Amino acid sequence: MEYWQKDIETMGREQLQELQLKRLKETVKLAVNSPFYKEVFEKNGLTPDSIQTLDDLQKIPFTTKNDLRTHYPFGMAAIPIQKCVRIHSSSGTTGNPTVVLHSARDLDQWANQVARCMYMVGLRDTDVFQNTSGYGMFTGGLGFQYGAERLGALTVPAAAGNTKRQIKFITDFGTTCLHIIPSYATRLAEVMYEMGIDPRRDTKLHTVCIGAEPHSEEQRKRIEQLLGVKAYNCFGMSEMNGPGVAFECPEQNGLHIWEDYVIPEIINPTTLEPVPEGEIGELVLTTINREAMPLLRYRTRDLTRFIPGECPCGRTHRRLARFVGRSDDMIILKGVNIFPIQIEKILMNFKELGSNYLITIETVGYNDEMLIEVELSDLFTDDYSALERLAKEVTRQLKDELLLTPRVRLVGKGSLPAPEGGKAVRVKDLRKLC
Amino acid sequence: MEYWQKDIETMGREQLQELQLKRLKETVKLAVNSPFYKEVFEKNGLTPDSIQTLDDLQKIPFTTKNDLRTHYPFGMAAIPIQKCVRIHSSSGTTGNPTVVLHSARDLDQWANQVARCMYMVGLRDTDVFQNTSGYGMFTGGLGFQYGAERLGALTVPAAAGNTKRQIKFITDFGTTCLHIIPSYATRLAEVMYEMGIDPRRDTKLHTVCIGAEPHSEEQRKRIEQLLGVKAYNCFGMSEMNGPGVAFECPEQNGLHIWEDYVIPEIINPTTLEPVPEGEIGELVLTTINREAMPLLRYRTRDLTRFIPGECPCGRTHRRLARFVGRSDDMIILKGVNIFPIQIEKILMNFKELGSNYLITIETVGYNDEMLIEVELSDLFTDDYSALERLAKEVTRQLKDELLLTPRVRLVGKGSLPAPEGGKAVRVKDLRKLC
Repeated sequence: MEYWQKDIETMGREQLQELQLKRLKETVKLAVNSPFYKEVFEKNGLTPDSIQTLDDLQKIPFTTKNDLRTHYPFGMAAIPIQKCVRIHSSSGTTGNPTVVLHSARDLDQWANQVARCMYMVGLRDTDVFQNTSGYGMFTGGLGFQYGAERLGALTVPAAAGNTKRQIKFITDFGTTCLHIIPSYATRLAEVMYEMGIDPRRDTKLHTVCIGAEPHSEEQRKRIEQLLGVKAYNCFGMSEMNGPGVAFECPEQNGLHIWEDYVIPEIINPTTLEPVPEGEIGELVLTTINREAMPLLRYRTRDLTRFIPGECPCGRTHRRLARFVGRSDDMIILKGVNIFPIQIEKILMNFKELGSNYLITIETVGYNDEMLIEVELSDLFTDDYSALERLAKEVTRQLKDELLLTPRVRLVGKGSLPAPEGGKAVRVKDLRKLC
Repeated sequence: MEYWQKDIETMGREQLQELQLKRLKETVKLAVNSPFYKEVFEKNGLTPDSIQTLDDLQKIPFTTKNDLRTHYPFGMAAIPIQKCVRIHSSSGTTGNPTVVLHSARDLDQWANQVARCMYMVGLRDTDVFQNTSGYGMFTGGLGFQYGAERLGALTVPAAAGNTKRQIKFITDFGTTCLHIIPSYATRLAEVMYEMGIDPRRDTKLHTVCIGAEPHSEEQRKRIEQLLGVKAYNCFGMSEMNGPGVAFECPEQNGLHIWEDYVIPEIINPTTLEPVPEGEIGELVLTTINREAMPLLRYRTRDLTRFIPGECPCGRTHRRLARFVGRSDDMIILKGVNIFPIQIEKILMNFKELGSNYLITIETVGYNDEMLIEVELSDLFTDDYSALERLAKEVTRQLKDELLLTPRVRLVGKGSLPAPEGGKAVRVKDLRKLC
């Protein structure tokens, strides 16, 4: 077993927490130099000295994307702008964009973070790494570029688009690893087969890093099979630098989140309290290895849970489960938090069911009820008693998952509005507000 | 006067040549590790020891773009591919692309080269540098990104396109410098004025680096006036890393070519002999500060001349004049080398003439003759004697420039085929091959 930074990656919990506390204290001292955190600390009667233990982190209010927007462009900067060397900015299609600032040290540490992830999945300086991300402002471009160069791989900065050219690079340069979004990985494989190129036979590809798009275990398996590779899930977001925040190890069972870079919390997005260990909630991150723009208790809106127990790979940094959606998608019904992805997961288990479904929340008498309509697949019978048995089994499994009993209605293929481009509308909330 | 690397930038000629010879010898020793140069040296009875003086460089045959194509992808590599960390590749729209390989050391030196250029035109770590180049394979993106970060400027990796967003970044981030192609600089300024933004009043822009596209002194002046900036001409090509090969200093009179990175020669593209000092010819470059893929006597096809004399800025590295075209455009007539740009330059001096012209070379009897047809501008008279006087004066000035006498025919506006998109056809060669 080999590590990029063995001492840090396999550090005991106690020592890791000492490191976190040391870095947290430094981070807080820096953060209060920014106009934003200066005000937050003053308003809440806090000073850097208020943070003496890791638990003291809880004293600090959450930071949200909206805080970044309202303090655009430089209100979160903790060091003079002249000491920053890079800006990454979101597109800002609605309202002000969000901006993240980096010092030269920040970029250096980020490159190390990405190199550590790549090394973890077996990549070495002998690999040829092709990055199909957009470059420029999108952090998947420069983030992986710097990380892969740090690793010493031969980088092919292909950037996004032009599938034929991507394939020419893969075959001509002997590309062994791609960074690619999952839907494009499938597309790329399809085009290769159409061109008579079998990626398993005709290329040197052995690894792909997939991210930036939610995807299922089935999709990963399909990508692995089509391309003849191992596919590793990666998590990043521009507010936390970009790629490299958390990454799967060869076990492919959860993403190690680098706890020397961030302190992760998982909270109930309604009560804002920590969820019990192992339960799903919103990921909250505090940067502890960044100087230009520290973020304290940043609400990522991304939903996941900690995977309990030790990882056989020997790394001690905690693992996040596959992300299940965004907290903005959460439905609260009878005091229970429900995410559409939980329902989808159950429905997808039944081969008798198609992939189109609709969740309707409505007020019936004095009660709020959930109705789940789901299309049958092509294959299924119209035998009434078989349908009834199926509906019962689906309901039972949903009840186990959601802890409440939805009404389930099986409908014929094509009965529900078909998803057209972009995001399908899966939830209709028709509750009466009293 | 301040320099990025004073010792090197102001180095005396003798010392600079010593450095060049030392680096040339190292480069040749490396180069023969590549399959391509190994063969070139063997075929020509050369060994690295054949190079004992700078003049010995002449013993080595030229390298052409075609050599790069036929040794695609890795036949020019002088170190093991595993020691390379980046590939830049041309688009290869016709035939194989050309590939340039870089080691970590090469990228480090390239970043230094670009930082030196930026520092020369007055940029400092307090500047905000917005790069409007495409990123990925195009070297103007990553080349300037690494250089500007090395300088310590705050970089805005805007990448190409989306003019409104470029303008938002310029105003919101206080951008002081742009890297931009000349035609887009004009376009950007126009859009700003349309939006009611006066870049001279409403932005902090003070400098733009323009390159990658031929442009005239008038265009530079127009960009400077529209944006309220100083505009500096920069020269680069992917075969020589990318941006940073040569760059104007604040004198704006020629581009210093960094002679600790390359050895420049200017040759007659027909005879392949050096042109007399100060005459126009094809630029030939030998890399002397690159390890992954050295290029010896690489024919750039770009036409320029050395500007004689010392530069008031104190830098001792020779200056190249504004590039006047590509050697592929050269016309040879009666043993004289003529470039269409020479003719255009003369014609543009006459406000009585329009911008559309056509050069025809034809065999008349036993002689090859040049006919230049040029449209009159809107403004001009149809008074025959005035026309005759004009034609005579145009002919006289052309004769002075070209050292042969062309026939000149003034034609009405709209008589010549209008240039449609892309490159106008300016030269028709109708000579009979005997």
